[in-house]
Amino acid sequence: MEQPPIGDVFGELVRDAYAVRSGIGPRPLAGGRVPRPVIEIIERDDGLINGAPADQYVAEPDEWQPHDHRALRMCRGAVLDIGCGAGRTALELQRRSMAVTGLDISPGAIEIARKRGLRDTVIAPVDQYARTTTRYDTFLLLGNNLGLLEGRDRAPVFLAALAALARPGARIIAQGTDPYGTTDPVHVGYHERNRERGRFGGQLRLRLRYRLHATTWFDYLFCSVEELEELLQGTPWRLKSIDRQDHPYYLAVMELHT
Amino acid sequence: MEQPPIGDVFGELVRDAYAVRSGIGPRPLAGGRVPRPVIEIIERDDGLINGAPADQYVAEPDEWQPHDHRALRMCRGAVLDIGCGAGRTALELQRRSMAVTGLDISPGAIEIARKRGLRDTVIAPVDQYARTTTRYDTFLLLGNNLGLLEGRDRAPVFLAALAALARPGARIIAQGTDPYGTTDPVHVGYHERNRERGRFGGQLRLRLRYRLHATTWFDYLFCSVEELEELLQGTPWRLKSIDRQDHPYYLAVMELHT
Repeated sequence: MEQPPIGDVFGELVRDAYAVRSGIGPRPLAGGRVPRPVIEIIERDDGLINGAPADQYVAEPDEWQPHDHRALRMCRGAVLDIGCGAGRTALELQRRSMAVTGLDISPGAIEIARKRGLRDTVIAPVDQYARTTTRYDTFLLLGNNLGLLEGRDRAPVFLAALAALARPGARIIAQGTDPYGTTDPVHVGYHERNRERGRFGGQLRLRLRYRLHATTWFDYLFCSVEELEELLQGTPWRLKSIDRQDHPYYLAVMELHT
Repeated sequence: MEQPPIGDVFGELVRDAYAVRSGIGPRPLAGGRVPRPVIEIIERDDGLINGAPADQYVAEPDEWQPHDHRALRMCRGAVLDIGCGAGRTALELQRRSMAVTGLDISPGAIEIARKRGLRDTVIAPVDQYARTTTRYDTFLLLGNNLGLLEGRDRAPVFLAALAALARPGARIIAQGTDPYGTTDPVHVGYHERNRERGRFGGQLRLRLRYRLHATTWFDYLFCSVEELEELLQGTPWRLKSIDRQDHPYYLAVMELHT
């Protein structure tokens, strides 16, 4: 098999998940008749392949995990929802009359977020958006998007971009996953090989696939709170609090040094 | 990326789906804590990749599609459930005190079927099992397993094996899917390219993947009723009835020539 062509995998996935849920737009159908569930395919560089239902990206608040609700209650001032996808959380903040910008690198996902009513959207990586003059009080990284810190190389650059976009006293509210509770030898072995290569154990090298397309390979970080603290050293951000109620998921609140 | 190693993909999938549903055996867990849904990954030779929830393989009768119930009501005498998987339908026939043998090529799936209480099981392809002296009145091909006819080369061989295993008056009850209702250009184009190569439009070339393993590539047939009739010509079987109530799915009953 040749390598699959690169495309806006996340955008296509979210568009179909939204169509299945809302009935708006063409849905994937078995035999041209029966709606199929939309599944995100995640390949890891050790050959592990997993599927995850994409319906989560368009879930309504009453279906969310409890920590998502706790995260939104901590938002204040102008909010930048980073990796906002189809607008799941940004739309809810907008409903609550908060000032919120949804940012994503996927044009397809932003198109769906706008179709669903999200008014303020940006298609860009944070580094590029950091050149704007807009400033924020809260940066939201939900849906495991603490993973966007990637690892030791990327984290300082990413965190500097957020600092450039920050008002005094700004906070990052990020949801992460501690991957180290597993005893599955496939994961434990992967973590070990990562560490041998100077990476974090849970520094996953992934690509996403949907239908005919793939993303390029990228790093996505599942880290412990201790590893997060290591990453924050020497950056303008410091850890303010951790909510571990939904372990292995956690919410980390980081605050700009004053 | 290298090619994934070949393994008992279906067996591993079914074992995990059964563990998630029953709590028996180790389950796949996110962060070592939260159960993950088990997803079957299906790759097609044009690069299309799809996921399907594997929970269907261990679904209880009240969750089945209506045509599965109609198929079981048509069973009589000794039944061979071909591609029985985790025993979904064979276990229900056994509960109804029918004589049923569950046959599958997956050792892992048969292990789960036996763990769930299925008494008479065979790990073999039908060709190999056709050397036995056991004879059957009904051959069941559910869960799209009409697809095991593969195409023009395989169908006569497969149907001859069933004839060798058949008592006089035996019937095949098979569930198929008519793939030609789609307008999706990805599928329509695939069907066209298949026909240009002398294959049936819906003669899918697939492999399954789960976690670290893949199957070898195999053909699996989604065909119209007209194509099925073409395949039956010159074989010991003739089409007796078609139930299209759940279109695009259908139940075909085939009877041995007397």
